[in-house]
Amino acid sequence: MSGSSALLTDRYELTMLDAALLAGTHDRECVFEAFTRHLPPGRRYGIVGGTGRLIELIEQFRFGDEELEWLRSAHVVRDATIDWLADYRFSGSISGYREGEVYFPGSPFLVVDAPFAEGVILETLILSVFNFDSAVASAAARMVTAAVGRPIAEMGSRRANERGAVAAARAAFIAGFSATSNLEAGRTWGVPTMGTAAHAFTLLHDSEEDAFRAQVEALGAGTTLLVDTFDVERAIERAVRIAGPELGAVRLDSGDLPSLVRTVRAQLDSLGATKTRITVTNDLDEFTIAALAASPVDSYGVGTAVVTGSGFPASGMVYKLVAHRPRGHVGDWIPVAKKSDGKASVGGRKHPVRRLDESGRAVAEAIHVIGEDDVVKDRGRDLLVPLITDGVADRRYLGADGVRLAREHRASAMAELPDQAFRLGRGDPVLPTIFV
Amino acid sequence: MSGSSALLTDRYELTMLDAALLAGTHDRECVFEAFTRHLPPGRRYGIVGGTGRLIELIEQFRFGDEELEWLRSAHVVRDATIDWLADYRFSGSISGYREGEVYFPGSPFLVVDAPFAEGVILETLILSVFNFDSAVASAAARMVTAAVGRPIAEMGSRRANERGAVAAARAAFIAGFSATSNLEAGRTWGVPTMGTAAHAFTLLHDSEEDAFRAQVEALGAGTTLLVDTFDVERAIERAVRIAGPELGAVRLDSGDLPSLVRTVRAQLDSLGATKTRITVTNDLDEFTIAALAASPVDSYGVGTAVVTGSGFPASGMVYKLVAHRPRGHVGDWIPVAKKSDGKASVGGRKHPVRRLDESGRAVAEAIHVIGEDDVVKDRGRDLLVPLITDGVADRRYLGADGVRLAREHRASAMAELPDQAFRLGRGDPVLPTIFV
Repeated sequence: MSGSSALLTDRYELTMLDAALLAGTHDRECVFEAFTRHLPPGRRYGIVGGTGRLIELIEQFRFGDEELEWLRSAHVVRDATIDWLADYRFSGSISGYREGEVYFPGSPFLVVDAPFAEGVILETLILSVFNFDSAVASAAARMVTAAVGRPIAEMGSRRANERGAVAAARAAFIAGFSATSNLEAGRTWGVPTMGTAAHAFTLLHDSEEDAFRAQVEALGAGTTLLVDTFDVERAIERAVRIAGPELGAVRLDSGDLPSLVRTVRAQLDSLGATKTRITVTNDLDEFTIAALAASPVDSYGVGTAVVTGSGFPASGMVYKLVAHRPRGHVGDWIPVAKKSDGKASVGGRKHPVRRLDESGRAVAEAIHVIGEDDVVKDRGRDLLVPLITDGVADRRYLGADGVRLAREHRASAMAELPDQAFRLGRGDPVLPTIFV
Repeated sequence: MSGSSALLTDRYELTMLDAALLAGTHDRECVFEAFTRHLPPGRRYGIVGGTGRLIELIEQFRFGDEELEWLRSAHVVRDATIDWLADYRFSGSISGYREGEVYFPGSPFLVVDAPFAEGVILETLILSVFNFDSAVASAAARMVTAAVGRPIAEMGSRRANERGAVAAARAAFIAGFSATSNLEAGRTWGVPTMGTAAHAFTLLHDSEEDAFRAQVEALGAGTTLLVDTFDVERAIERAVRIAGPELGAVRLDSGDLPSLVRTVRAQLDSLGATKTRITVTNDLDEFTIAALAASPVDSYGVGTAVVTGSGFPASGMVYKLVAHRPRGHVGDWIPVAKKSDGKASVGGRKHPVRRLDESGRAVAEAIHVIGEDDVVKDRGRDLLVPLITDGVADRRYLGADGVRLAREHRASAMAELPDQAFRLGRGDPVLPTIFV
């Protein structure tokens, strides 16, 4: 696989570039904004995921010989455009919501300032990253709320594209999950990894007893034994007999969990394994997690629901040209917006502020549509921070450090939200978006 | 990004390996099968997508120094297991349904014959690839049916993880789409690419007229002009005036399509542009495509719905150990199956056959549960073909050639299905699955 991200791009980005180069409009200074018109139906807020990944992918957005040769042979663009692409390296500036920030309809969570040619060809990559990562982060945040402090592990790699799975593990961690099963997410993004054994391990051995012994031998008594391959009650008796009361945890991956968990807890306690934890992993989502709030569950593992955005696998984000002016021209930005039926947008550069009341509670997403020299007077929290300045990335947001920062920021941004944000039932966005 | 696929894996695959190596059970000969317990609710068949990609990813499944060093530092497995992984290279055999094949609940579309250690660590990768690619292929096939012969382009890259998007473009093409917007899918998999311009191109210019002129200048009169940025009627008048009646196509990305398309066709005809095609791209899925069957649409572009499996972004596929025996032992396979509540599986090696009637129409998915020397007597079509034999891949299934082959096979496999398979409304699987 090529290390370049440059062809992870829709063909029309390059044909627009081709035509603009010929017309001489490629170097107009432009402002592009990414935002969503709506949250998924019933959702009260969203979580921005993907920012740190995007910055790294933009650094890898270079057209090498392989990419250029293919573009030439496929007659995608003219030779002059191939030459332009050979030198491409993003030299503009990008500001945005910090990763982990809460967003609402209309929130301009990414603002790209660049010549048309440089900004337009990033559109597909920007939207791919945010549409997927934010869908996962937004669903994961609701699950974390539903778990009321109990840890949740992301285990959905097998239900997502193999590379998407790594991004999903990262996004879920930013949203408050405690760990992932995905090893690449551990290596690349520093997400803690977890996992011990599947049913296959039990079935491989001549008996469940042999399997448990083999696992405890290799992984220690603190391991998690999967106890529902045959008969849960007999498995738990075996598990505690083999590992002793130091057994770390038992995992339940099937059955009617609320009643089963209660029975299992009682059995563990009766065997003296009062500190052995119970983890459950049976096709959970935010609603089934919430339904287990009163059950003696110690931790959750979530797969399909989190990596597919719990019903909304794409966040509906779009990337729009909102203003431009001739190159080198000072002042006089021309705000632009399409008028397409049902898809009209607001032209002009925006400055978003989260308004807070005296107690620090968020009350509105105030989006100031501003001119070149306007000073925004708003007591709220400024939402845009510089991510890339004149082509140079702020490295604090990259790699595992960026992930940790995003996870912390997500916690503090969510702490500002009013309580009704955290209801799982369907509702409207919890803050109004106000264009000022 | 590393070229290795080895860490695209759940941690528990490696901890199971670790424990099996210590117990000496790692080299038991095993049969693993991948299948789904259910189709998504209401679906009548599924399309296998991902086989060719998987074979290539298995060839890249090697633990290099970087991967091993990280596993060591993260204390994922013991040092002896690290040494075993350093030499890992899949030496077993894999047979499966040909890519593009139709599948049903219980269809063992992939069968892995390998020592436990070699087969178990591929589980996550196998499921990631098939769960995603097959979800896309299965949704795409329904859209192709709904389009009754009109071409459909896949344009959903921006609604999927950036690497998942490439796999999605490939899967949609196998399922009968005619092209993709995704350039990497063009380069890597030979999928035809398409696309001309977005609203941003019109908004960049001083007028729609300037934008159309610039595009026609660069891309020729045969290009597709996007005509709904401001006012469709005036845009079409301009488009034909600028490009002439040779204008290739106009694209509509908003509005009430059935009525709009009719008006646009009449206007184009009245301007003499009788051969100018109409392509529509406004958030389509199989149902909205079907609703346009009587409208004078020439082609469709589909985004979100196809890359997210039209409501079912993961196919629910699982990978199970179904039989094993001691290493070097002839005969006497031990069939195994878990009994977990609601997740019970059928043990033993399986030989699937698609039964056909005298006219060649499919009537059942017959799955023979067989012993070592059993000869399957069934007049149907054998569904398993060798993909990897003793570690060596059949190269016909790889790369762009494999994609073409899969696309052809999908067409012939679908042609066997009874007519009711192609109804879009909810229904049961169109063939019964019979365990023989």
